[in-house]
Amino acid sequence: MAAQLGSGLDLESLRELINVRLAQLVPEGHPKGPAAAARHSLLAPGKRLRAIITLIASRSHGGTIEDALDAACAIEMIHTSSLVFDDLPAMDDADLRRGVPTAHSEYGQDIAILAGIGLINGAYEIVAQAPSLEAERRIEILRIITRAVGWQGLVHGQALDLNSGENTASLDAIHEGKTGALFIAAAECGGVASGNCSDQDRRALRAYGRALGLAYQAFDDVLDQTACEATAGKTTGMDEGKSTAALGGRASIDGGTALANKHLDNAVRAVGKDKPLALLAEFIRGYFAKTIAA
Amino acid sequence: MAAQLGSGLDLESLRELINVRLAQLVPEGHPKGPAAAARHSLLAPGKRLRAIITLIASRSHGGTIEDALDAACAIEMIHTSSLVFDDLPAMDDADLRRGVPTAHSEYGQDIAILAGIGLINGAYEIVAQAPSLEAERRIEILRIITRAVGWQGLVHGQALDLNSGENTASLDAIHEGKTGALFIAAAECGGVASGNCSDQDRRALRAYGRALGLAYQAFDDVLDQTACEATAGKTTGMDEGKSTAALGGRASIDGGTALANKHLDNAVRAVGKDKPLALLAEFIRGYFAKTIAA
Repeated sequence: MAAQLGSGLDLESLRELINVRLAQLVPEGHPKGPAAAARHSLLAPGKRLRAIITLIASRSHGGTIEDALDAACAIEMIHTSSLVFDDLPAMDDADLRRGVPTAHSEYGQDIAILAGIGLINGAYEIVAQAPSLEAERRIEILRIITRAVGWQGLVHGQALDLNSGENTASLDAIHEGKTGALFIAAAECGGVASGNCSDQDRRALRAYGRALGLAYQAFDDVLDQTACEATAGKTTGMDEGKSTAALGGRASIDGGTALANKHLDNAVRAVGKDKPLALLAEFIRGYFAKTIAA
Repeated sequence: MAAQLGSGLDLESLRELINVRLAQLVPEGHPKGPAAAARHSLLAPGKRLRAIITLIASRSHGGTIEDALDAACAIEMIHTSSLVFDDLPAMDDADLRRGVPTAHSEYGQDIAILAGIGLINGAYEIVAQAPSLEAERRIEILRIITRAVGWQGLVHGQALDLNSGENTASLDAIHEGKTGALFIAAAECGGVASGNCSDQDRRALRAYGRALGLAYQAFDDVLDQTACEATAGKTTGMDEGKSTAALGGRASIDGGTALANKHLDNAVRAVGKDKPLALLAEFIRGYFAKTIAA
């Protein structure tokens, strides 16, 4: 993933910045302990898309990358925590993630659970002490992220998805909870971190995050049907029997791609064509088209 | 548990206040979903000791009960979350807790895990929006709690305890992480919520919380050796094979009780004889003596 997004931003540099900071934010700990398991999952090659959204959203509203870096890393830690939990045998029972064994495959379920707790807790700890933000901005970011994770966010989306077949949740409702909620939070937190974000700007960022999240999840479902593990870097074909698959199965691969492109159009419209966040959406469009073609 | 603690404080009223507020803080949700599972574990009869410490610590430093109530409930939600996770089959595999089936026994492991995540996340959400505290106090409370949970707190203590036999962790180190960390945070958060707490006061509160936590854990280990499930309200005899049991087994029941009483003496000394927090420590001494005798 290397692309120019205007305003001197390029994806590769942003991702490197995030990776360096993430490695500072979780201690090494005992080699078989929860911190080591958390680092194993957190520092495995990830696209860092959510964190990158936060950084670009801050820059787009006159903030600095530094202002938003710890909030961005917190979002990424929350995301990794959700992967560690979702991959557990009691959930999706996956062996592979980001091209490496899942945390419980490598460290055992007990330590993986503690790693997941440590990551979610650590995310909030980092925002609570973010050096470049005053207390009000830290609190606002914490409110945004906790709402995204909570009873109406990630936790809710995963519960809907687990309850396959028996519920009437729409595919969009599941995706909005499982993926959209954190994309929305990522965009909005960047705006808040900038310190220059009106209520209208925040609404636009939420609309952008929502649309990008839905696009991302739609592409991911297409990939899950088509890709081999080597391409996806995670256990694939896992969604069989889950609500997303039951509902997604109706749509052809072409249909899924068209749906994703529609959501990307909405994302671009929310922030304005040629803006850095819009260029990011276009980059994602190209990246997935290339991956699906391969 | 009914006792007068001076200053118009009695345990029963404080506990009732906490229970009412806790029931407001977690939504009902779908009857088989994570919020329902969280309420099942959270609202089961608990002693609410950690939350009560927070309330009394606030009052003892000139704050109100209301100032500290949401912080106290957050501590209680973190505690319940740790129980939900610790009781999972991959950890202690317990069926009974607080006199009711554990969350995973009743709702399944997947939903129990989501309930645990929802509770820890909800705790931070509540502090981040605590209506009676300004942003700086909320942030300080969040820093205290996240530190208590994190890589050197509960997560660390549970990892030490799981790693039975093979490590050189002392019993005190395990207890300090598993129990002490949250007792310390409970006391210190109350002081911070009051808005009237000097650095010296905070040190005293931490010393109190640490000593009370060690006493509590020592009594709990004695009870685990002696009590039946009906008395303890949870699956007992579970600690066999764990570090705490391996190390605790050296001591007789009398030895464990003497150790707990020594820690309680330290707790009383930290805050001053006849102060409300000291009276709470004395109440705990009497409560456990009576329970062990029975």
